[in-house]
Amino acid sequence: MPIRIGIYGYGNLGKGVELAIKQNDDMRCVGVFTRRAPESVQTLTGVPVYSADDVADFADKIDVMIICGGSSTDLPKQTPFLAQYFNVVDSFDTHAKITQHLQNVQGVAEKSQKTAMISVGWDPGMFSLARAYSGAILPQGKDYTFWGKGVSQGHSDAIRRIEGVADAKQYTIPVEAALNRVRNGETPNFTVREKHQRECFVVLKEGADAAAVEKAIKTMPHYFDEYDTTVHFISQEELNEKHGGLPHGGSVIRNGVTGKDGENKHVIEYRIQLDSNAEFTSSVLVACARATYRMNNEGVFGCKTMLDVPPVYLMKITREEAIQQLL
Amino acid sequence: MPIRIGIYGYGNLGKGVELAIKQNDDMRCVGVFTRRAPESVQTLTGVPVYSADDVADFADKIDVMIICGGSSTDLPKQTPFLAQYFNVVDSFDTHAKITQHLQNVQGVAEKSQKTAMISVGWDPGMFSLARAYSGAILPQGKDYTFWGKGVSQGHSDAIRRIEGVADAKQYTIPVEAALNRVRNGETPNFTVREKHQRECFVVLKEGADAAAVEKAIKTMPHYFDEYDTTVHFISQEELNEKHGGLPHGGSVIRNGVTGKDGENKHVIEYRIQLDSNAEFTSSVLVACARATYRMNNEGVFGCKTMLDVPPVYLMKITREEAIQQLL
Repeated sequence: MPIRIGIYGYGNLGKGVELAIKQNDDMRCVGVFTRRAPESVQTLTGVPVYSADDVADFADKIDVMIICGGSSTDLPKQTPFLAQYFNVVDSFDTHAKITQHLQNVQGVAEKSQKTAMISVGWDPGMFSLARAYSGAILPQGKDYTFWGKGVSQGHSDAIRRIEGVADAKQYTIPVEAALNRVRNGETPNFTVREKHQRECFVVLKEGADAAAVEKAIKTMPHYFDEYDTTVHFISQEELNEKHGGLPHGGSVIRNGVTGKDGENKHVIEYRIQLDSNAEFTSSVLVACARATYRMNNEGVFGCKTMLDVPPVYLMKITREEAIQQLL
Repeated sequence: MPIRIGIYGYGNLGKGVELAIKQNDDMRCVGVFTRRAPESVQTLTGVPVYSADDVADFADKIDVMIICGGSSTDLPKQTPFLAQYFNVVDSFDTHAKITQHLQNVQGVAEKSQKTAMISVGWDPGMFSLARAYSGAILPQGKDYTFWGKGVSQGHSDAIRRIEGVADAKQYTIPVEAALNRVRNGETPNFTVREKHQRECFVVLKEGADAAAVEKAIKTMPHYFDEYDTTVHFISQEELNEKHGGLPHGGSVIRNGVTGKDGENKHVIEYRIQLDSNAEFTSSVLVACARATYRMNNEGVFGCKTMLDVPPVYLMKITREEAIQQLL
């Protein structure tokens, strides 16, 4: 019997989940749940669409609900609500509020005897795992996280809100020299500016003042003022053609020492390079849905993170196969 | 109360474990157990040395025994034997025999209500984890493992056995062009020769025939004949000075695709670069000793691998701290 998956929310992430399920033949997608009018939504692979209002009716028909809402306002409400009825997985990524979110979900899931996995994806998620393992192995060391090259949706949105801007894409780019120093085993202290730079592709509205827009971007507090930022003005056609995707990636590096006097250096790097940020995150969510289902079957209830779950639970193959093939 | 660790076997790995324990203040090293005369062994940090014959007397004094023997003849006997009395961790690395070793240890540890972790280190170990996570996330993809640049002790030993050779060090080196193709997201099929090359530094005995030695190396079946091999003849002084260490490392890379028609490519790379192969492996063993101790305290008995263990069990900090700091 395949694991029956529901998708709650159908933006880029929900679509990615729908496609990722197709790659895992031990799973089946039961339906997409949307707050829009269901008849207005067309799924990529013909999965049925239901109203979010009716979701509780599916409590017996879905093994794991993958919640694809946003972290700022959706997930803090949706995940505890849905954990009353379903095993759930979400990608809550507001780092500072994860502990609070975990406690909220834990309370509900314990009561309903459901299993939840929160903050699944790549950061938090795979990058957290890289930090955890590397830190456990090399306690005397220093962690670095470089993001990019990739599109930051938050920064792109911030540019779009500037007067005179019709459209924009912002790339976060690690500073090559900084990355190379860390890869070579050095453990420098970097300023914000020394680690990342920002590159913006901007489409102006008719008659807008380019110089004013460029200044507004470069001086924007928190988003851009602490970075070296370059701004390119291009046409909407060029933006659509060359900057239509949502690539991302990055590296988590830990440099540590061992030996009698710390004389031996070690570098551990976990690096990802993604054509589609959303589809990669979706793929992590789907693997974690499998782990969530298995934990619930074994009576492990409550709210978990990727740090709590044995790696073998994420895999389609059996433990015996994993040991034989991967160890 | 610190976790009380014993070290069984005191070669490079055992010495590395002794030093790694010093970096973890939740642990204490109770003693080293050796098959040599205990009075002939001097430990690096003053840890007491006992005879391996007396090890069973320490059943109540040690929480986890880290077994630092070799995989070919030591560990298949030592790990099941010691699992009668202790929670144990080993670095058994004969890939083809891991399942058999696991079953042997499982039988003993279940009976003694002890917990064992086997095949801990970097390959098997951290590289296995990289393969497991990446494969679970990107089911449509291909794995690559590149080893090096690093010293292969097996290959160095093989050269030393050739007539006329006084000493030797052999480096395994990934072929840069192959590595770059994979890092760029390609999924080629490589021959053995296309992935790795071998570089040998050889000290000849007085009057030895250099050409004959070089030919004997390059044509040695399995070890060298399938690789592009370069041989450098150097003095013992130069070998000691420039090639005295045991650096190693490598990369596990998975290239996978997502999307409706596999149109989006993703590259995941886990890379390590180690000044000391033995000390890094030791550091992994020590982190896993912590996990073994915790599992045993929770009543999880039997034989485990790194694939079976929640990452948070390896860490010194609490789960709450890990979630707050790393997620």
